Amino acid sequence: MQNKDYYAILMAGGVGSRFWPVSTQDFPKQFHDMLGTGDTLIQKTFKRLTNLIPKENIFILTNERYNDLVFQQLPEVSKRQVVLEPAMRNTAPCILYAALKIQKENENAVMIVAPSDHWIEDESAFTKNVSDAFEFCKQNNALMTLGIQPTFPNTGYGYIEYDNNETTAIKKVNQFREKPDYETAKNFIEQGNFLWNAGIFMWSVRSVIEAFQNNQPELYQLFESGYDSYNTPSEDAFIKENYAKAENISVDYAIMEQSTNVHVLPATFDWNDLGTWGSLYDKLDKDNDGNAVVNARTLTEDAGGNMIRTKNNKVVVVDGIEDYIIVDEDEVLLIFPKTKEQDIKKVLQNVKDKFGEHYG
Amino acid sequence: MQNKDYYAILMAGGVGSRFWPVSTQDFPKQFHDMLGTGDTLIQKTFKRLTNLIPKENIFILTNERYNDLVFQQLPEVSKRQVVLEPAMRNTAPCILYAALKIQKENENAVMIVAPSDHWIEDESAFTKNVSDAFEFCKQNNALMTLGIQPTFPNTGYGYIEYDNNETTAIKKVNQFREKPDYETAKNFIEQGNFLWNAGIFMWSVRSVIEAFQNNQPELYQLFESGYDSYNTPSEDAFIKENYAKAENISVDYAIMEQSTNVHVLPATFDWNDLGTWGSLYDKLDKDNDGNAVVNARTLTEDAGGNMIRTKNNKVVVVDGIEDYIIVDEDEVLLIFPKTKEQDIKKVLQNVKDKFGEHYG
Repeated sequence: MQNKDYYAILMAGGVGSRFWPVSTQDFPKQFHDMLGTGDTLIQKTFKRLTNLIPKENIFILTNERYNDLVFQQLPEVSKRQVVLEPAMRNTAPCILYAALKIQKENENAVMIVAPSDHWIEDESAFTKNVSDAFEFCKQNNALMTLGIQPTFPNTGYGYIEYDNNETTAIKKVNQFREKPDYETAKNFIEQGNFLWNAGIFMWSVRSVIEAFQNNQPELYQLFESGYDSYNTPSEDAFIKENYAKAENISVDYAIMEQSTNVHVLPATFDWNDLGTWGSLYDKLDKDNDGNAVVNARTLTEDAGGNMIRTKNNKVVVVDGIEDYIIVDEDEVLLIFPKTKEQDIKKVLQNVKDKFGEHYG
Repeated sequence: MQNKDYYAILMAGGVGSRFWPVSTQDFPKQFHDMLGTGDTLIQKTFKRLTNLIPKENIFILTNERYNDLVFQQLPEVSKRQVVLEPAMRNTAPCILYAALKIQKENENAVMIVAPSDHWIEDESAFTKNVSDAFEFCKQNNALMTLGIQPTFPNTGYGYIEYDNNETTAIKKVNQFREKPDYETAKNFIEQGNFLWNAGIFMWSVRSVIEAFQNNQPELYQLFESGYDSYNTPSEDAFIKENYAKAENISVDYAIMEQSTNVHVLPATFDWNDLGTWGSLYDKLDKDNDGNAVVNARTLTEDAGGNMIRTKNNKVVVVDGIEDYIIVDEDEVLLIFPKTKEQDIKKVLQNVKDKFGEHYG
């Protein structure tokens, strides 16, 4: 049950360097079939959104260098739907810019902003949650987010604290909390009214633009001044000239943390941000020895708990290795302990320093 | 100082399956640059022999399926020099056959039979040893072998026991001894007059043919009956019809162990049969952490004692792995403990059973 007032912005400009050597500057994570399902993450995300949102209303926010990848992987997308940042900025400028473009096209639009590289298993629960949030945004001047029910005291995510007294499904947000230390995170979980911030936002274009106008007047002025050009041939010139002037600020900080009309719907679907090889391992089915295998055929002995991936269904023989990340790419072979996965960014830096930038 | 009476037969029909996944049925060890020197083992062996032997006198004994590889890797070799076995037989039949062909071409010929997949570092010592042996074979009716000074009680080689009383460099052989158990091997080393049998033989064509005539009359009859056809257009037809009738017997057993005129020259050069990944590791230079690296660039941490090889100078990141064989080929990645290298044949069989014969 698509609705012509429903819109989406897919954030597809990041790199995901903890997934090196698969995810690289030239070919980031969201354009890979990380789970071996046959779809890349952005294809999967796009399809999931079309349950609710007409495909011509789904915009892709990305960088110039990924333009070709977007059109290759989403051939149903037209040039109009791909919004390119001419300069690297945090999320606020591009979201405001896209919201203004959408508003000019449809002033009744409600929209979702969503990462293109996360994994959501239960698509119908996702669709139901987004649909409920959209309806709320249509009827209220609200900035909404989908919060993830935390399963353990993760110190790598931001948290959303909601008002415990409300009995409705959609809760008023008390405050956003930065990545906590372990004790604080444990305390959050015990309190029960904390959710993980997955970077999924929903609002009407009217509400989000008003929030920018109130909280980020300078940024608002900058992008509002180009309104006449949006969706016309002169848009490119305006953006090329003005985009780099925008403050480098996240949408969380720019409006969510400043506003009093922020609400959260605790998600009823499973969610995995596929942030590291370990979280991908957790998500995947395992063989009898507990190895997660993507695009490979394995012969293992005394080898369990490994994340094994090759490019072309290579035969991988592993003996006596436990809890490793084993990733074989055209130009790089990584054999690295899962427990040290947070160091992969450092390893990547070392490889680039030693062997050249193009390895990243 | 080449001599037109000097000939060689390079044995190039084997597979070396303990070097899987580099060495395969379709592309065996001798056709690989195992040490990353720029030359394959057969190229290296061929060059080594040309210090003494005219290149047109070096014959390659191999199978039909390696015909193309031989001509690719040794473009200076003519069709006349490639002797193909139409059926899989042990060494005696093909050596007798080749000796008869050479005799017909040059009845004064002395020849060396040598594996094409061993490693000899000191080429001038090798040349000197072979030259001395050749001169001995010219002047005496003798079957000669080069024996390797043993460095430890290896149970994987056969041994040659020589007469301790002789003071000449070239010794009379008492007997050949099969692969011994460890205690026996230790005892051999203590006695001091035992050498490793490296499968390197030298003799005049006259002496070797006489030895076959005396000790293997049936085999001799079979190949002698084709003498008129050798080195003529009718040779092919004769060999195709008769080769498969030959007994499946090794040259060691057929003549060396039966004859009384067997001599050995203790080699003065370093020798390595490159029989396993471990022996290749021993031979290679190591990086600061004790890793032997061929065709790869490495970034290692807490990783030493590894044998690391890729196809195209891949970047290999290894963390926390000690004493492993890490070999990356187009269709196979092997991560296997060096201590279990003798099991690689079994692993190969398992891979073929599970994923198909073509992986071997």
